[in-house]
Amino acid sequence: MKACGLVVEYNPFHHGHQYHVDKARQESNADVIVAVMSGNFLQRGEPAIIDKWQRAQAALQNGVDLVVELPSAWAVQSADFFAAGAIRILQNLQCDSLCFGTDAKQPFDYAKFAQFEKENQRMIDDAFQRIARQNATYSQKMSMVLSELYPEYHAEKDQPNHLLGMGYAREVLCYEKPMRLVPIQRIAASYHSEQFEHPTIASATAIRQGLKQGEAVVDFVPEATQKFLSQTTVDWETFWPYLQYQIISAPLEKLAAIYQMEEGLEYRLKQYVTAADSFADFIKLLKTKRYTQTRLQRLACYVLFQVTKVEMKEAQAHPFIRVLGYRKQGQHYLKEVKKELTLPLIAKFGKKEAQRYGLSLRIDQIYQQGNPQITEQNFRRIPLFIDK
Amino acid sequence: MKACGLVVEYNPFHHGHQYHVDKARQESNADVIVAVMSGNFLQRGEPAIIDKWQRAQAALQNGVDLVVELPSAWAVQSADFFAAGAIRILQNLQCDSLCFGTDAKQPFDYAKFAQFEKENQRMIDDAFQRIARQNATYSQKMSMVLSELYPEYHAEKDQPNHLLGMGYAREVLCYEKPMRLVPIQRIAASYHSEQFEHPTIASATAIRQGLKQGEAVVDFVPEATQKFLSQTTVDWETFWPYLQYQIISAPLEKLAAIYQMEEGLEYRLKQYVTAADSFADFIKLLKTKRYTQTRLQRLACYVLFQVTKVEMKEAQAHPFIRVLGYRKQGQHYLKEVKKELTLPLIAKFGKKEAQRYGLSLRIDQIYQQGNPQITEQNFRRIPLFIDK
Repeated sequence: MKACGLVVEYNPFHHGHQYHVDKARQESNADVIVAVMSGNFLQRGEPAIIDKWQRAQAALQNGVDLVVELPSAWAVQSADFFAAGAIRILQNLQCDSLCFGTDAKQPFDYAKFAQFEKENQRMIDDAFQRIARQNATYSQKMSMVLSELYPEYHAEKDQPNHLLGMGYAREVLCYEKPMRLVPIQRIAASYHSEQFEHPTIASATAIRQGLKQGEAVVDFVPEATQKFLSQTTVDWETFWPYLQYQIISAPLEKLAAIYQMEEGLEYRLKQYVTAADSFADFIKLLKTKRYTQTRLQRLACYVLFQVTKVEMKEAQAHPFIRVLGYRKQGQHYLKEVKKELTLPLIAKFGKKEAQRYGLSLRIDQIYQQGNPQITEQNFRRIPLFIDK
Repeated sequence: MKACGLVVEYNPFHHGHQYHVDKARQESNADVIVAVMSGNFLQRGEPAIIDKWQRAQAALQNGVDLVVELPSAWAVQSADFFAAGAIRILQNLQCDSLCFGTDAKQPFDYAKFAQFEKENQRMIDDAFQRIARQNATYSQKMSMVLSELYPEYHAEKDQPNHLLGMGYAREVLCYEKPMRLVPIQRIAASYHSEQFEHPTIASATAIRQGLKQGEAVVDFVPEATQKFLSQTTVDWETFWPYLQYQIISAPLEKLAAIYQMEEGLEYRLKQYVTAADSFADFIKLLKTKRYTQTRLQRLACYVLFQVTKVEMKEAQAHPFIRVLGYRKQGQHYLKEVKKELTLPLIAKFGKKEAQRYGLSLRIDQIYQQGNPQITEQNFRRIPLFIDK
């Protein structure tokens, strides 16, 4: 069987995702669609609106054959780490192709670009060094360099999917049998759009925003998602009291040891934590030109998780594949590739896994702490099975 | 002026405390009554029902002339540390006598007992060593030894005030001019009594219990206390979600570094934290013969405070006298003794104090986190002044 891999967050799963799954099946000509999905905390440094099992279930009911989890040590990270973790899992699962949405302004050959970058690393580094002193972030500078050296390169801040696509392209090159890249032009709603412009397709951001404002989102999501959204949903404000307590109660030197705590940011956290009325307010107070909102949100996650630099490194040294669920075809496929896997495959989370993957367990327990209605996320959970 | 010192918690201040203050004034023949009071967390390892300023105000309105705070590094401790911290402050404040309630079964000469103990330390140690292997706690063993060597000694588990009295007596002997000891027989309600037996006097425990069950406690407390009790009150359940989150999110080795975390207790905390529905339930699950409820409650405080062994030692190396409030006489007295003080006197808590007494600040901020109605406990607070 041939598999096509997707890198997803499904926060929550909506009609646009469904379109993407269908399109992936068509364009890749694969027998199964395998999605690697962020767990209960997401790339942009925020908790998922509904839990990973609920999001996986909606995906399985709407066309995905196999859903595995991207552990938080890779999921809650900048685009490059996120891409590296996700691609590693899909390559390990022997996917033949990788299908991803793109918001590139014109058709773009990702494989060719990555090849160019790989072959000209030295030249790129030199050009980067020359503008090192300009007052710009790393990614801004890299963007300047690449625009100059590679004329087709166009990447702006408002094209996160295009940037992620380039990240995937870089990563697949690290493997002996790189997945074939299948970009799909996104339709209707751009990633960040907060508007409802299309009758049935809206961005996940717009859907979450709409829910918060009490709007009906039934037109934009399949039944399974609708059902879960009508129950408990969470957002950063759910965890704000805990974050606030953590920043207040942790001694400065403990805060300083947190992953990604740099340049005395711990003082800023302590300084503003008692002044803020909400998480949104807190981030607004913290923000400077130097730190983007997502960078600060991820830092807030790390503080909430109490994860140190040492512990994050340790967790990243031990990747694993956690199966969240499958349809019949996905189950067959998993049986077929099982013996080829070099990463540990986890279908049941027991005592041994709790010890080995302590950080993942902790992060899920913290997620559960947000609301008593969130069910147990690990122990005694077996993969979902959708008989389709 | 002559001052009589009291060691108090006032959780909350009630008519029994008022009787104690009046009696102290009579028996000690002092001009001013000085109370050193636990801050927002108490000796038995629990948060105060109302904050330290509210408790101080009720005390000042009902006869106490000067209220200073016993910092949490001494307040939330076993009886011996608690006594050492409190006596140090009262001795430093040049108190002439120390008045304390006792639940001794018959009149007891505390000074004589402490003198005996001091002079016979060697003999006591030897006797203690001989029974070292019996299956009993330290205090049980010490009680056995002293009962044998000092016939008047009678101290049972249900006589915490008698035990504290002996602690005070031991401590005053460390000073050049030890305070004169003035024990007062407690009336009507024993410390732990949960019953209302007297028409106007009940134990603080009974009052808190009554409030929880929605009973009127107006007969047992002065007006000031009544007013505060009708507003925000807190108990351990207020902090239970934060404690639970802290135990879940802290890596094992961080929990192990917490003050008083011994013999692998961190594993027990992790084991039971997700099973418990409430703080009371959690303590019930944790309890063994080896660990008393108060020992576990104090440990829960240390976890909530994130205070390590190192940090507690550091805090205890820097005692200070924090003025919470005074009446006219108390203010005069403070002016009079100011130049004799060897401990830092803090009337206003600013940036410098925040740096120097970080642990105290943090503990108050955690207390504030329990309920948004709790007002700022340190910055911009000046001592209360009651014009009496």
